[in-house]
Amino acid sequence: MATIYQEAHQIAYYQGDTKKQMTLAMLVNVAILVSEHQNEELGITNELMQQHQVGWVVTQYQINVNRMPKVDETVTFATMATGYNKYFCYRDFWVTDQKGNRLVTIHSAWVMMSYKTRQMVAIIPEIVAKYKAPFMKGIKHFPRIHHVNADIAKRPYRVRYYDIDANQHVNNVHYFDWMFDHLGMPFLMAHDLAEINIRYEHELTVNDLAQSQFQQQGLISRHRISTGERQCAEAEVTWKNRH
Amino acid sequence: MATIYQEAHQIAYYQGDTKKQMTLAMLVNVAILVSEHQNEELGITNELMQQHQVGWVVTQYQINVNRMPKVDETVTFATMATGYNKYFCYRDFWVTDQKGNRLVTIHSAWVMMSYKTRQMVAIIPEIVAKYKAPFMKGIKHFPRIHHVNADIAKRPYRVRYYDIDANQHVNNVHYFDWMFDHLGMPFLMAHDLAEINIRYEHELTVNDLAQSQFQQQGLISRHRISTGERQCAEAEVTWKNRH
Repeated sequence: MATIYQEAHQIAYYQGDTKKQMTLAMLVNVAILVSEHQNEELGITNELMQQHQVGWVVTQYQINVNRMPKVDETVTFATMATGYNKYFCYRDFWVTDQKGNRLVTIHSAWVMMSYKTRQMVAIIPEIVAKYKAPFMKGIKHFPRIHHVNADIAKRPYRVRYYDIDANQHVNNVHYFDWMFDHLGMPFLMAHDLAEINIRYEHELTVNDLAQSQFQQQGLISRHRISTGERQCAEAEVTWKNRH
Repeated sequence: MATIYQEAHQIAYYQGDTKKQMTLAMLVNVAILVSEHQNEELGITNELMQQHQVGWVVTQYQINVNRMPKVDETVTFATMATGYNKYFCYRDFWVTDQKGNRLVTIHSAWVMMSYKTRQMVAIIPEIVAKYKAPFMKGIKHFPRIHHVNADIAKRPYRVRYYDIDANQHVNNVHYFDWMFDHLGMPFLMAHDLAEINIRYEHELTVNDLAQSQFQQQGLISRHRISTGERQCAEAEVTWKNRH
């Protein structure tokens, strides 16, 4: 049985939106922080990763939201590696309130990327063994993300200095801002996120110009972030009316 | 003697920049969070503020930086109300490392704004008495901020959904991003912030188009954020070379 790691977190006002809910960007930021704390506890240190000259890169998130944590609320973030195969490692995250109710569930897929070649490499067993997660024969299937059509609304987002993180790439949680910003204040005030499926393909760096394309049909929105001819991410989002 | 409040804070990776230093925006966010915790402890609750139909609005920060906290470092944020007069309340913040070295000092000036009229009102003694800060006869002088000239570089920043906070205005820490983004990656990688003086005049809200104007002379940069004819903020920044 893989090791579960959990940590309490109180939502700060600056992690909240106009609805006093935690933003999706901050939710994912804290989830990743909690998984880094698990890595340290299990001895999967930066030093170990550097010895092997590899880093983790997320390729996909499937996020289900019952409700977002509220500003000032203390919730628990938990995480566990759920399995791995030759090229992918899978990790779940979940957030519960103080009564133990499940607020958010995240399924995710990760690959190992070589520092030198910037290419994906096979999962290194010595590293993943520490998670005690099972080896899987097949690959885990995530929900299908329908493409956006060609002739849809688009808006440019120039990458700014503060979008870039210590790895010299855009922290991919910024993609959520570029995607949802399209929907506009009235829609976002009247609706909450129910589910998002997002697949990452290509990283952005400084001075890139990101295009955010968008298409909406009722409570479903589809999104594409690209730069030049390259697709960076595709997402499909389900919204629900606020009570 | 006014009450000092302090709290430890570990810098998360998502609060850092390309240099693995805490960003100024996140530093100010955490400072404000810590002062809100002091307010709660002293009984200056949201309920009390709502009874009086007022809120605090910052008008000025003077921030001196020896060095920014580093990602993963645990530092202490401390704050104290230093005095008040008829219209202004003054508050200091300071950040120290684990050896007690002073990393950052912030002097700030605040006014009380009426919820109903959106106008400044005289400081309510019943509220500020709880800080045990002294009444002052004069006003506290902040360093002069030199204006930018008219014919300088400018860049538009459309206010995005996630720039807006629960008060339906732009969290003013976003102004730092809009100001510093102008300086460009090579300059920001080679220099660190030494001092910033910023004065806030007018708030921005959703769908506003912010203009960020900028002028640089060696290690001094001057900035102006405006919307239409209205000036929102002016700042003067001193930079230092990185070792």
